[in-house]
Amino acid sequence: MTDLVELERRGAVTHLTMNAPGSLNALSDAMLAALKARFTDLARDSATKVVVLKGAGKAFCAGHDLKEMQAGRQAEDKGRAYFADLFARCAEVMQMIPALPQPVIAEAHGIATAAGCQLVASCDMAIAAEGTRFGVNGVNIGLFCSTPMVALSRNVPRKVAFEMLTTGEFIDAARAREVGLVNRVVPHDQLDAETARLADTVAGKLGAAVKIGKRAFYDQITLELASAYEHTAAVMVENMLWRDTEEGLQAFIEKRKPDWAE
Amino acid sequence: MTDLVELERRGAVTHLTMNAPGSLNALSDAMLAALKARFTDLARDSATKVVVLKGAGKAFCAGHDLKEMQAGRQAEDKGRAYFADLFARCAEVMQMIPALPQPVIAEAHGIATAAGCQLVASCDMAIAAEGTRFGVNGVNIGLFCSTPMVALSRNVPRKVAFEMLTTGEFIDAARAREVGLVNRVVPHDQLDAETARLADTVAGKLGAAVKIGKRAFYDQITLELASAYEHTAAVMVENMLWRDTEEGLQAFIEKRKPDWAE
Amino acid sequence: MTDLVELERRGAVTHLTMNAPGSLNALSDAMLAALKARFTDLARDSATKVVVLKGAGKAFCAGHDLKEMQAGRQAEDKGRAYFADLFARCAEVMQMIPALPQPVIAEAHGIATAAGCQLVASCDMAIAAEGTRFGVNGVNIGLFCSTPMVALSRNVPRKVAFEMLTTGEFIDAARAREVGLVNRVVPHDQLDAETARLADTVAGKLGAAVKIGKRAFYDQITLELASAYEHTAAVMVENMLWRDTEEGLQAFIEKRKPDWAE
Repeated sequence: MTDLVELERRGAVTHLTMNAPGSLNALSDAMLAALKARFTDLARDSATKVVVLKGAGKAFCAGHDLKEMQAGRQAEDKGRAYFADLFARCAEVMQMIPALPQPVIAEAHGIATAAGCQLVASCDMAIAAEGTRFGVNGVNIGLFCSTPMVALSRNVPRKVAFEMLTTGEFIDAARAREVGLVNRVVPHDQLDAETARLADTVAGKLGAAVKIGKRAFYDQITLELASAYEHTAAVMVENMLWRDTEEGLQAFIEKRKPDWAE
Repeated sequence: MTDLVELERRGAVTHLTMNAPGSLNALSDAMLAALKARFTDLARDSATKVVVLKGAGKAFCAGHDLKEMQAGRQAEDKGRAYFADLFARCAEVMQMIPALPQPVIAEAHGIATAAGCQLVASCDMAIAAEGTRFGVNGVNIGLFCSTPMVALSRNVPRKVAFEMLTTGEFIDAARAREVGLVNRVVPHDQLDAETARLADTVAGKLGAAVKIGKRAFYDQITLELASAYEHTAAVMVENMLWRDTEEGLQAFIEKRKPDWAE
Repeated sequence: MTDLVELERRGAVTHLTMNAPGSLNALSDAMLAALKARFTDLARDSATKVVVLKGAGKAFCAGHDLKEMQAGRQAEDKGRAYFADLFARCAEVMQMIPALPQPVIAEAHGIATAAGCQLVASCDMAIAAEGTRFGVNGVNIGLFCSTPMVALSRNVPRKVAFEMLTTGEFIDAARAREVGLVNRVVPHDQLDAETARLADTVAGKLGAAVKIGKRAFYDQITLELASAYEHTAAVMVENMLWRDTEEGLQAFIEKRKPDWAE
């Protein structure tokens, strides 16, 4: 099953490749299960410091598997139980990304639509090839992208999200960067290299610091200002007391490279 | 009274035109009442799928009617009760826009200031003519735009909103798009056509999907991530069970136009 | 002690200059105490209508004083109590800025890193010289910028903040404006003049209106829409009942300058 999401280790960076190019890497039941399995493993994989998520073939991901969804209607309840389970599983997979201890970088090319666009929005960072198109176009077939909207509307300004959701129109990579959906845009032939550069940069940091930082990022972002400071100040105290951080500060003062245990 | 806000139907798109050009479409008591009446009607108008809001004459809207406000001071309480009622009525009208079942597009030209800028910010989407200026300039006359700030600060980054509020300075249409206050900027002579194009695009979607999507958009936007997903997943299940959505998916699979009942 | 933060009055604008250029204005214990003392005084300084915060020498501020932090480890508890106190004091100073009655403008040049970048983010507005670099680069030495992230992630889109935090890389002034961290970017030799212009613009407004407006800005920004309107509508009623606001409206109607008591 996990062949649907191939895993490749490049040092401390683990690349996950959704590998169903014939369906534009549709988030079928099997693909969602494969992603969940991979994320579950990565959550306890201390050798991985950064995760890259990409798609094989012509597109990053085109969203749900419509044929499979239609087949779900054959049940006695017209699919109600299946759909409830499907959207719960999908939302679970999306929420596993910010919950992972490692930063996750979406490497997007071709198209990222509906739940595929949601995947990009759910990642901590994203790099796109020039020409990549992003959309939440379920509205075109009568299925409003209500769950993709959760991730999208936490990335981009309200009016931008609303327009994408109700028109079903695509935005290009440059606009995606302008509005906050992706971090960087590069020519397609430099996509792998630029993603590697970003991933290696983050993987070169003290892993424990990145890990507590990522968790604190999402923990604090919806808190009131005073609570957010109370929470993060406590995180910084713990961070300061690590041996590697003591060494990191000392090395900086002495203008040398830190000698980190990890 | 409702002549102050003219209504014109163009298929499934209803255009509302604030029609007090002599006062730059000031939000007088009568104008607020007319907008409220129109929005109240539209809330149960199933023939309308998209609303366009615009202003007659040289400007979109210049905010409150200052002469009327000054006249309110004649009361025994120096106007306290009148002002409390006025700002409550104005806030009610502003909140009716995201609460309407149909997407509302602001079509802005000339100037949109104070509560006029708030109207643009309160709409779900906005298109501006080149040269349109946006400001929350009450501070210039000693009346801080405290209620307009509610809508504005939910559209644009904090420092941008703060600068506009405390300097009273205008931003132009291009900057308004950059910061998220408007979606599109076009030459003035193409404003009507571009708004029509956007409105028709949205009006061409399955109305029920847009309706539940809009509601879900505002319902989820302030929720914690897990709650937002729980809420929207339930919305998607209902959406999937509609006959028209079943047909929409099937038509997409069969590469034909959907045969929708609505 | 307060020589560390010099105070200069230019009419109603008070300039605070962090003055420890040898340490790039590091936020040492003494610097934090000096800032707190200045902010405490300014909170009851009715002659000051706008505050400008800047740094002497080559940089705005380079964050915490690492040597002092390392020295804190000598205590029996390895510095735990000291660090807890330090981050609490730092967070207190940061939160004093939005809590001040006057708008605070950061005038940034050179570099603004870690808690120095947090200072910029915590200010109500910011102007940067071309060439200024902004970063939250504690991750480079194993100390994730968890408290700076609180202010930063309330200024810029999520993915932008996350990238800055986990890569430790700088963004330049132009990008800082694009993402919402600063309001304006000017050539270095025009930085003082442009800041003065912005400060004077705000200082020329009715001080009481700016004061209640600033407070209402932060009070409403995290509230639900209906609560935010309820709160700010009450603020506007009080604002309307002031003599100076009555005069401001009347002067506008009569096309003359207001005769304000303050």
